[in-house]
Amino acid sequence: MPTINRRLYAPESLRRLLAPASVAIVGASAKPGAFSNRTLENLANYLGEIHLINPRYTEVSGRPCHASLRALPSAPDCVIVALPWQAALDAVREAADAGAGGAIVYASGFAETGLAERVALQSAMSDIARGSGMRILGPNCLGIANNKLGAGLLFQMGYAALQHPPGRVGLVSQSGALGYALLQGANHGMAYTHLLTAGNSCDVDTLDLAHYLVHDADSRSVACVLEAAGDAERLLELSDVAHACAKPVIVYKTAVGEAAATAAQSHTGSLAGSSQAFDAAMRRGGFIRAASLAELTEMADFFAKAPPPQAPGVAVMATSGGAAIMCADASADHGIVLPQAHPETQAVLDANVPEFGSARNPCDITGQVLNNPEAFRACASSLLRDNHYGALVLPQVTAGQAMADLRCPLVSSLASEAGKPVCIVWLSDWLEGPGAATYARDAHVGFFRDTDRCFRTLAAWQEWHLRRAGNPRSARGEDVDAAVGAQARALLSEQPRVVTEQAAKRLAQMYGLPVVTEHAVSGVDQLMSAMASMSFPLVLKYDVPGIAHKTELGLVRVGLENAQEVEVAARQMLESIQLRAPGSLAGQFLLQRQAQGDFELVLGMKRDPVFGPLIMVGLGGELVEIFGDVATELAPVDQYAAANMLRRLKCHRLLQGYRGKAGVNLDALAGLVVRFSAMCADLAEEIEEIDLNPVMARGSDFIAVDALFVRRQTQETPTQE
Amino acid sequence: MPTINRRLYAPESLRRLLAPASVAIVGASAKPGAFSNRTLENLANYLGEIHLINPRYTEVSGRPCHASLRALPSAPDCVIVALPWQAALDAVREAADAGAGGAIVYASGFAETGLAERVALQSAMSDIARGSGMRILGPNCLGIANNKLGAGLLFQMGYAALQHPPGRVGLVSQSGALGYALLQGANHGMAYTHLLTAGNSCDVDTLDLAHYLVHDADSRSVACVLEAAGDAERLLELSDVAHACAKPVIVYKTAVGEAAATAAQSHTGSLAGSSQAFDAAMRRGGFIRAASLAELTEMADFFAKAPPPQAPGVAVMATSGGAAIMCADASADHGIVLPQAHPETQAVLDANVPEFGSARNPCDITGQVLNNPEAFRACASSLLRDNHYGALVLPQVTAGQAMADLRCPLVSSLASEAGKPVCIVWLSDWLEGPGAATYARDAHVGFFRDTDRCFRTLAAWQEWHLRRAGNPRSARGEDVDAAVGAQARALLSEQPRVVTEQAAKRLAQMYGLPVVTEHAVSGVDQLMSAMASMSFPLVLKYDVPGIAHKTELGLVRVGLENAQEVEVAARQMLESIQLRAPGSLAGQFLLQRQAQGDFELVLGMKRDPVFGPLIMVGLGGELVEIFGDVATELAPVDQYAAANMLRRLKCHRLLQGYRGKAGVNLDALAGLVVRFSAMCADLAEEIEEIDLNPVMARGSDFIAVDALFVRRQTQETPTQE
Repeated sequence: MPTINRRLYAPESLRRLLAPASVAIVGASAKPGAFSNRTLENLANYLGEIHLINPRYTEVSGRPCHASLRALPSAPDCVIVALPWQAALDAVREAADAGAGGAIVYASGFAETGLAERVALQSAMSDIARGSGMRILGPNCLGIANNKLGAGLLFQMGYAALQHPPGRVGLVSQSGALGYALLQGANHGMAYTHLLTAGNSCDVDTLDLAHYLVHDADSRSVACVLEAAGDAERLLELSDVAHACAKPVIVYKTAVGEAAATAAQSHTGSLAGSSQAFDAAMRRGGFIRAASLAELTEMADFFAKAPPPQAPGVAVMATSGGAAIMCADASADHGIVLPQAHPETQAVLDANVPEFGSARNPCDITGQVLNNPEAFRACASSLLRDNHYGALVLPQVTAGQAMADLRCPLVSSLASEAGKPVCIVWLSDWLEGPGAATYARDAHVGFFRDTDRCFRTLAAWQEWHLRRAGNPRSARGEDVDAAVGAQARALLSEQPRVVTEQAAKRLAQMYGLPVVTEHAVSGVDQLMSAMASMSFPLVLKYDVPGIAHKTELGLVRVGLENAQEVEVAARQMLESIQLRAPGSLAGQFLLQRQAQGDFELVLGMKRDPVFGPLIMVGLGGELVEIFGDVATELAPVDQYAAANMLRRLKCHRLLQGYRGKAGVNLDALAGLVVRFSAMCADLAEEIEEIDLNPVMARGSDFIAVDALFVRRQTQETPTQE
Repeated sequence: MPTINRRLYAPESLRRLLAPASVAIVGASAKPGAFSNRTLENLANYLGEIHLINPRYTEVSGRPCHASLRALPSAPDCVIVALPWQAALDAVREAADAGAGGAIVYASGFAETGLAERVALQSAMSDIARGSGMRILGPNCLGIANNKLGAGLLFQMGYAALQHPPGRVGLVSQSGALGYALLQGANHGMAYTHLLTAGNSCDVDTLDLAHYLVHDADSRSVACVLEAAGDAERLLELSDVAHACAKPVIVYKTAVGEAAATAAQSHTGSLAGSSQAFDAAMRRGGFIRAASLAELTEMADFFAKAPPPQAPGVAVMATSGGAAIMCADASADHGIVLPQAHPETQAVLDANVPEFGSARNPCDITGQVLNNPEAFRACASSLLRDNHYGALVLPQVTAGQAMADLRCPLVSSLASEAGKPVCIVWLSDWLEGPGAATYARDAHVGFFRDTDRCFRTLAAWQEWHLRRAGNPRSARGEDVDAAVGAQARALLSEQPRVVTEQAAKRLAQMYGLPVVTEHAVSGVDQLMSAMASMSFPLVLKYDVPGIAHKTELGLVRVGLENAQEVEVAARQMLESIQLRAPGSLAGQFLLQRQAQGDFELVLGMKRDPVFGPLIMVGLGGELVEIFGDVATELAPVDQYAAANMLRRLKCHRLLQGYRGKAGVNLDALAGLVVRFSAMCADLAEEIEEIDLNPVMARGSDFIAVDALFVRRQTQETPTQE
C-alpha cells in the first residue's frame, strides 16, 4: 500500500458520502439475499431519496428502477455499487461522471487477493477518486450506517430491525464484520451514532472516518477497531483535532502479535509497523487503548457519558460482600484509591447500613438497604456529594427489571446533579437480563460487565483528563540548529553503512551528547605518545570501517593498567584482524579514559517503517534484556514525555536511589533523552539505527562510552515491500 | 475462625441436605417478599414433600402449616430456617432433635458482624452440628439449588422462572450473591446441575460442597467462587479426589489484593493467607484458575464438554479476516500453535475458499462459504479430521438464529465424530442475540465471548491434561530421616529466636545442603592460627546471638587479602559492637573462604498462616528484587515441581547459559530446591522464616555463604488473630 501523501479529508468533503440526502443503488435486484436488496431493506427507516439502478429492470420491489445514473434527474449524494468486482470500476467511474458525492463499493476481489491485476484495478479506483473529487469507500467494504438518518448503507442483513436509541458513540472499523458485530450491541443498550467501515481503503480510510466522527457533535466519543497502523502523519493530525475538540478516541488494535501482523499484512497489503511504535504513537496522540472488543464498547460508552473527574477517589456501594471485595481487587490492580468518607457521609452510612454489612469503603450496604428506597437514596446521595469521591461504583449482582426501573432514574439524577459518573457493574451472568439495558441506555450511568474493566476504564478516564490538563501540546521536542544538521549530514555522507565509532561519537557530540574523551591514532607507535597525557586505567579499541561488533573480534580491551599492557593489547588486535577479518580496511586505535558510573544505561533508536524513529531508554546488561525493561517513544520527545519514559521503567526505583545506594539525577537524564531524541528526529531520513551503549551514569554525569550509527540503505532503488 | 480439624464431609453425609426428598420451611409466612415465601415460590417445580412450619398459622398459601417440626409424621431431609438471627439457633436445635438430615440458615447477624456474642452464637450452632451429625449450611447463607430436583432452596426471587436445561457444571460459591449472579446465566445457555452457597460456614463449607460436586456424576466440571483460602489439608484432599475422579475444578478467587484480603478477613473472620501461597496450593492441587466471573463460567462449561486433546495444534475457521487476526493475536499470547494443514486438508480448503479469503490457518473462509452449506461442511470436516489439530475455533461475528439453527447441529456432530471440541467465539456485542444460546447449550460446542478467553481456556485444557499424564501424584517431596529432624530440633531448642549464623549453617548441613567451609573462633588471637590452614582472600564475620543483619553493623567484611587486614577488620567489628549494640552477648568470629560463583541465588521460606511453609527461589541482587522474579511453591516439592519452579523464572534463560556465558546445571539446582523444601517441611512447626542468601552457583556446585533461620514465637500463648 503506497503511503497516502495527503492530509485527512475534511468532514465537509465526506458529508455527501456519509450523511446523504439521496442514495442510488447500482445493481438493484429483487433477488432475496442480493446485496442490493439487503441494502434496500436496511433503508426501511431512511427518509431521503432512494434511486434504484439496473438496466435489466424497470421496477424492483415496487419501486421504479432506472437504466443508469445518467437517467436520474439530479446526481445522488451517495452511490452504492452492489456489483461484482468485474463491473465495479465502470460503475464507480459513472458515479463520478454523474457528479455523485461518494460511492461505496461492496465487491471483494481487489488488492486483498494479492493478484497483480486486481491490485491495479484498485489503483484505478483510487485514481478516479483523486481525479474526480468523489470520495470512495471500499472496495471490499461492508458499508456504513448513519443511525440518525436511518441510513443502513450496508449489505449485512437485519440493520433496520436493530434498536437505535439516540446515539452518543461513533464507531469506526477497518473490518466490516467486526464493526457490525459491535453495532449489534444496539440491542442491549449501546447507543451508536454511526458505524463507518473502511474495507480496502482505496480512497477514504479509517483515519478519515474517525476524523469525521471527531467533528460530529452527536458522537461524544469515538470507538475505533484498527488492523493496520495507518500512516503516522495523519494519525498525529487526528490526535491534534481530537485534542482540540476534547473528544476521546478509544482504539482497539488487532494484529498486535508478529504472526497476526503478518496475516494482516498479507491480508490488506498494508505495512503493519512494530507494535511498540504503534503503542508509542497512541500514547503520544492521547488515544485510549482498549484490550478487547468488550472493553472498547464499555470504555467508549463511559467516555461518552462521563464529565471530567472531580477527585481521584472512588466510592463502592455494593449490596454483597463478595462484590465489594471484587471491587477492592480491581481498584488495587489499576491504582484507583478507595478512600474513606468524610465524617458527615460516614454518619449517613452508619445510620443506614445494618450490622451484618459494611459501612466502610468499599461498602456492603446489603440487600436490606437495596430494598429500602429511602436508605438507598441517602447512602448513594451522600457518597456522591462527598468530595473525596469522583465516581460511584454500584455492582449489581442480580438481573431484575422492577429494581432497575426504581433505581436507575434515582442514581441517574443523583449522578447528574453531582456531575459525577455512576458505574453499574453488571455481575449477573444473565448478560442482557431484565434491567441491563435500562442502565446501559441511561445518559449518566456507565455500564460494565466486569469489575476489572470498570476500574481500568476509571483509571483511563482519570489519566486522559490529567494528560489534557498537564501536557502542553505545542512542545514536541527540541529544535535542532540547522547548521548542526548540515554538519552531521556532511560527515555521514563520507561514512560506510556502519559508521566508524569515532565518527559516531563526533555525531553524538555535535548534538550535544556527552561522549568519552578519546585519542585516535593509526599506529602502535603513536599510542605511546597519546598515553602521555592520560591517566590509567585506560580502554583501547580498534575501530575498523564496516565492523560493528568489536568485542567479538577482541577489538575492545578495558582496564589496561600501564603502557606495556596497552602495547600488548594493540598488537593482539592487529593480529586478530589479520586472522579473523583479513582484507579489512585500515583502522584506528581509540584510546579512552575508563569511564566510571553507578549505572550503565542504554539509549537506542530503531527506525519504524510506519512511524519513523522509535527511541528507547533502559539499563544495560543481560538481566534488563531478559526482563525487557525498556521504555520506548517516538522521537522527538519533550522533557515531560522523557520523564514519563523514565517513570515507566521498572528500574525507576533503582535510578531514584534504592536502599541507600546512589541514584541519578532524573531531570538531567530526561534532558539527555530529549537531546538524544532530537538528534534521532533530525537524522530520521539518514539513519536506520543508533545505539549509545553503555552510557555511564553517576549523579548528573552521563557519558557515552560507545556509539553505533547505522545508515539507511540508499534510497535510489526503493524496495517494494 | 478456628481451624477445622476434620476431613471433608463424605458426599453421602451431605445428601439429605443437598438432594432432599422432603423439605420443611421453618418460619413459613404468606407475606410477600418474606424469605420463606420466596423459598416456597422457588420450589414450584419441586416434586418432593414440602412442609411448612409456623405456630402462628394453620395454613399458608393454601398449604397446611404445622406448629413445629415435632408435629411432622417423619423427619424432613432438609430444614430451611427462615427466621431472624434471634430465633435461628433454637430452630436449628429443634431440627437436629427431630432428626433432620440438614439445615440451611438464611439469617445474617452472626460472626460476620464481628460482635463477640454473635460469634459465640455461631459457635453454638457449630456445636449442634458436631453433636448431632445434622449438617448445617450457613448462617448468612443464600441457600442452594438442586436443578435436577427443581429444588430452589434459596431466598433469591425468581429461581423457578429460570431455564434449567440438563446440567453439566456444578457451581459452588462462598458468596451467595455472586453464586446466584452466575446461576442467572442459565437463561443464556449455561447448564448448571447445582448452585451450592456456603455463607458463614459454621459447619459445611465451600470445600465440602465442591467435594460433593466432584463426586456428582452429572457435574462434569466444578466451578468455584472462593473468598477465603479455606484450609490447606482439606484443599489437598479435595485435589486428590478431583484427580482420582478426573474432574476439572475451576476456581475464581476474590480477595486477591492486600486491601481486598483485609476486607474479606474482617468480613468473614477467616484468615486469608498470602495470595502467593494460595496460587501455589492451586498449582499443586491441579486446580484451574479463572481470572474473572466470565472466564469461570466459560472455562467450566468448556471443561464439562471437551474430551481430552488429541493434538496441541488448533485450527481457526473464521468468516472474517478481522476475526482471524484476533485469533492469531490470542493464540500467540497463550502459546497455542496454529499449524498449517495436511496437504489433503489444504486441498479441500483451496477448493472451497474464494480468492479474497484465506485458506491458510488462521483461515478466513469468508461469508461466501458460510452461506454455502456444502463448502462449510467440507472445510470444517476436513480440519477436524486433520491430526495436526486438537480443536477447531469458529469465531462468529453476527447474531442470527437461522444460521445457528443450520450450523450448530452440523458442527456439533462433526465435533462429536472427531472427538474434538469446536469453540464458538461469539464476537457479536448482541451478547445473547439470536443463536447464542443454541451454541451455548450444545453438548460438543465450547462457547466463548472473547478470543482471549477462548485461547486461554484451550491452553488451560492442554496443560491440565498434560499434567495429569505427566506428574505422578504420589511424589510429594523427599522423606527426611527422623534422626536428622531430631538432631535439628535439639540444636534449635538451644537457639535464640534469630538463630546464630553458625547454627543456621549447621542446620542446613544436617539436611544435606552445602554451606561454605568456615572456622569459628571466639577471639582475635585465635583468628591468626585459624588462618594458617586457609587461602586468601577470606571473608570475616562476627556472629552475635540475636543480631540478624550483620552488614548494617559492619560485621561482614569480604576480600580480605592478608592476615593484617583480617586482624584490623576483627578489631573494628568489636569496636562497632561496643558502640552500636552495647550489651550484646559475646559473639564468635567466622572465617570463611571467599566462595566464587557465576550466579548468586536465593533460597527462602516464609511460613504462611494457612498453607505452611512457602518456599521461593530466584537470583539474588537488587534488580531481581525490583523485577520480583522469584518462583514460589508450597513445601515440600519433588524434582518435577522444582524444575517447574526454575522454568517459571524469567531468568531461566540466564541460568541455562545465555549468549555464550556459562549457565548452571539445572537438574542439580532443582535437586537442591527439593532438599531445601524437605528441610522446610520438616521444620514447619519450628521455623517462621529461612533465607540462604546468597547461594553461590557455578556449574553443578552450589554453596550457601550465609544462612538465616528465624524460629516461630513460642506457642504457649497463642495470639488471637
